[in-house]
Amino acid sequence: MSQSFDIAVVGATGTVGETLVQILEERSFPVADLHLLASSESAGHSVPFRGKNVRVREVDEFDFSKVKLVFFAAGPAVTLSFASKASSAGCAIIDLSGALPAGQAPQIVPEANAQVLAGLEKPIQVSSPSPSATALAVVLAPLRGVLDIQRVNVTACLAVSAQGREAVSELARQTAELLNLRPLESTFFDRQMAFNLLAQVGKPDAQGHVPLEKRLVTELRQLLGMPALKVSVTCIQAPVFFGDSFSVSLQLAAPVDLAAVNAALEAGDSIELVEAGDYPTAVGDAVGQDVVYVGRVRQGVDDASELNLWLASDNVRKGAALNAVQLAELLIKDQL
Amino acid sequence: MSQSFDIAVVGATGTVGETLVQILEERSFPVADLHLLASSESAGHSVPFRGKNVRVREVDEFDFSKVKLVFFAAGPAVTLSFASKASSAGCAIIDLSGALPAGQAPQIVPEANAQVLAGLEKPIQVSSPSPSATALAVVLAPLRGVLDIQRVNVTACLAVSAQGREAVSELARQTAELLNLRPLESTFFDRQMAFNLLAQVGKPDAQGHVPLEKRLVTELRQLLGMPALKVSVTCIQAPVFFGDSFSVSLQLAAPVDLAAVNAALEAGDSIELVEAGDYPTAVGDAVGQDVVYVGRVRQGVDDASELNLWLASDNVRKGAALNAVQLAELLIKDQL
Ligand SMILES: NC(=O)c1ccc[n+]([C@@H]2O[C@H](COP(=O)([O-])OP(=O)(O)OC[C@H]3O[C@@H](n4cnc5c(N)ncnc54)[C@H](OP(=O)(O)O)[C@@H]3O)[C@@H](O)[C@H]2O)c1
Ligand SMILES: NC(=O)c1ccc[n+]([C@@H]2O[C@H](COP(=O)([O-])OP(=O)(O)OC[C@H]3O[C@@H](n4cnc5c(N)ncnc54)[C@H](OP(=O)(O)O)[C@@H]3O)[C@@H](O)[C@H]2O)c1
Repeated sequence: MSQSFDIAVVGATGTVGETLVQILEERSFPVADLHLLASSESAGHSVPFRGKNVRVREVDEFDFSKVKLVFFAAGPAVTLSFASKASSAGCAIIDLSGALPAGQAPQIVPEANAQVLAGLEKPIQVSSPSPSATALAVVLAPLRGVLDIQRVNVTACLAVSAQGREAVSELARQTAELLNLRPLESTFFDRQMAFNLLAQVGKPDAQGHVPLEKRLVTELRQLLGMPALKVSVTCIQAPVFFGDSFSVSLQLAAPVDLAAVNAALEAGDSIELVEAGDYPTAVGDAVGQDVVYVGRVRQGVDDASELNLWLASDNVRKGAALNAVQLAELLIKDQL
Repeated sequence: MSQSFDIAVVGATGTVGETLVQILEERSFPVADLHLLASSESAGHSVPFRGKNVRVREVDEFDFSKVKLVFFAAGPAVTLSFASKASSAGCAIIDLSGALPAGQAPQIVPEANAQVLAGLEKPIQVSSPSPSATALAVVLAPLRGVLDIQRVNVTACLAVSAQGREAVSELARQTAELLNLRPLESTFFDRQMAFNLLAQVGKPDAQGHVPLEKRLVTELRQLLGMPALKVSVTCIQAPVFFGDSFSVSLQLAAPVDLAAVNAALEAGDSIELVEAGDYPTAVGDAVGQDVVYVGRVRQGVDDASELNLWLASDNVRKGAALNAVQLAELLIKDQL
């Protein structure tokens, strides 16, 4: 009989954590004991897994030596508080919060840089990158072979669920208030989110960059192994519950061979290329799916060295929970 | 006493036409007789102007020799049907539909290329460009003097009102259906518009380009007088009722002098630059206003020759009705 593993999920009651538990079940991940952890607020609640209800416990009281692998799917502060305790207990870490430096826990998307896993030392620490970097890396990885990419311009249109449960409730509440002509309340977002677009996700530094955008540039270069890649990025918040979309324009050293691009995308892992003339949407295509959808593959209006794409991806699945479980699947092959 | 003019508005019952009539009143345009025209469907309705109700008539039966100036604010087909009749009657034309070729009716945004007006022959025909080209031209015009712009990358996030009244009703109806867990109906849009983003506005050609995007490239080059400017564009449909937003990234021949950029924007006509660290939104800032809002002015994350901006503009006002009235104000100075 093949081996199974004791596992912990920190943040198991959250948007990402709940999906992560579902995906462990869906993909028949070889789980022996599953420990679900969160804050004192939801300790005592339970989450279904393989037909049983698993009780959620407080992370503060958890003995990490009980498990081989822990997923950190709470905020960065929680990762920073417990990662070294987990690591000292010999536990492998897959972090989804972006809190750990790349030197300590490299960002990995299997479709782009799975080879990095082989070089890791125990106790293993890896990071699942931001949903934007993940979606872009999945799609650009197979294009590295057929294009000489000079610059990536991206406007990332992010779902509110990227900011967790409170953001989701606020979009729903604001929308209902507006439709019912009631006064609008903003508590989570700093202004009206319903029927609007917000140009800034997070707090900007003195140069006007927000951490999410800086992180995307760094992560994308790492994932693609292209440290000198120029990346121009704007992350905006869209009034969409689930599913990120990306308007991407690549500048290339030479005119695009569209047939080669389409063939590379068709052959790429975790990519669904929609028919020419059509385009995917976050809500209609990406949500609930494991692949990144690609459409509107075209040259510039009169620039053959420009390649434009539109991507749609489930920020909670491939953008977080699914990528983390895929990393775990690779780790258990020969590294745990 | 100063002169006043007999004027006609074709499409007076539409999103743009109604606002145009309001703006004529707001800006005390010297109107003598106002003729409001539409299809047989709304002939007989009336529209308020300066405290009176003006009755709407059918355009088919209108004698254009009665007026000095006509605004065409119905669809392109209506412009194409009646423009030559109006012109033969000696009437000046301001077209908002994009139907007339640039050689016949040049695109003009006063803040960018007002000088083109002086060269026009009678009977005058001018076009008010697409809302996207107009907003971009207003903001890029004063930057021409301080930057050597090599390429403009833009993702234009368009309000549904850009597609008229039916699109507005459909977003409202779909949103209510979803919030009330009723089945979703799409009649105007080809899929779910509420809580979603659509990557394609209009029907693409074999190369994947939609007319709106091709038009934006052509118009922007004309308005800025930069025929060789590289423009990379994606127009998406956002679930926003009124107000367009633009994620813009400029590539420059040299590192940006941000102080000079800010000074040029501060001094630019019809521009409102928001404070550093803040950003404007379509709904919260632009709608109902006469200026194009600019925020998130910043260099690339690590590229000083990249300038990023976020714009928000009222697609119906500066994007259409207001720009057209501004053109009329210039024409009546010495050309009508
Ligand atoms: N949402 C996405 O699309 C996405 C994608 C990639 C990465 N991420 C990252 O994943 C992490 C979780 O995001 P989310 O969207 O799932 O957030 P969320 O829906 O708000 O859930 C937060 C989770 O963290 C737990 N938590 C909060 N404070 C805690 C504490 N002091 N100790 C232990 N557990 C605590 C919460 O437990 P309680 O129920 O006890 O409050 C809950 O389970 C974040 O770092 C986020 O940046 C999110
Ligand atoms: N909405 C924008 O943001 C925007 C911005 C720039 C330019 N434009 C352009 O402006 C034009 C009008 O757009 P809109 O958004 O105002 O559309 P809309 O709200 O749908 O209104 C259409 C107007 O055209 C009239 N019309 C339709 N068919 C007609 C016909 N056969 N003969 C005479 N009148 C007819 C309608 O009159 P009835 O009441 O009789 O149907 C109505 O007054 C379009 O060309 C559009 O591309 C729109």
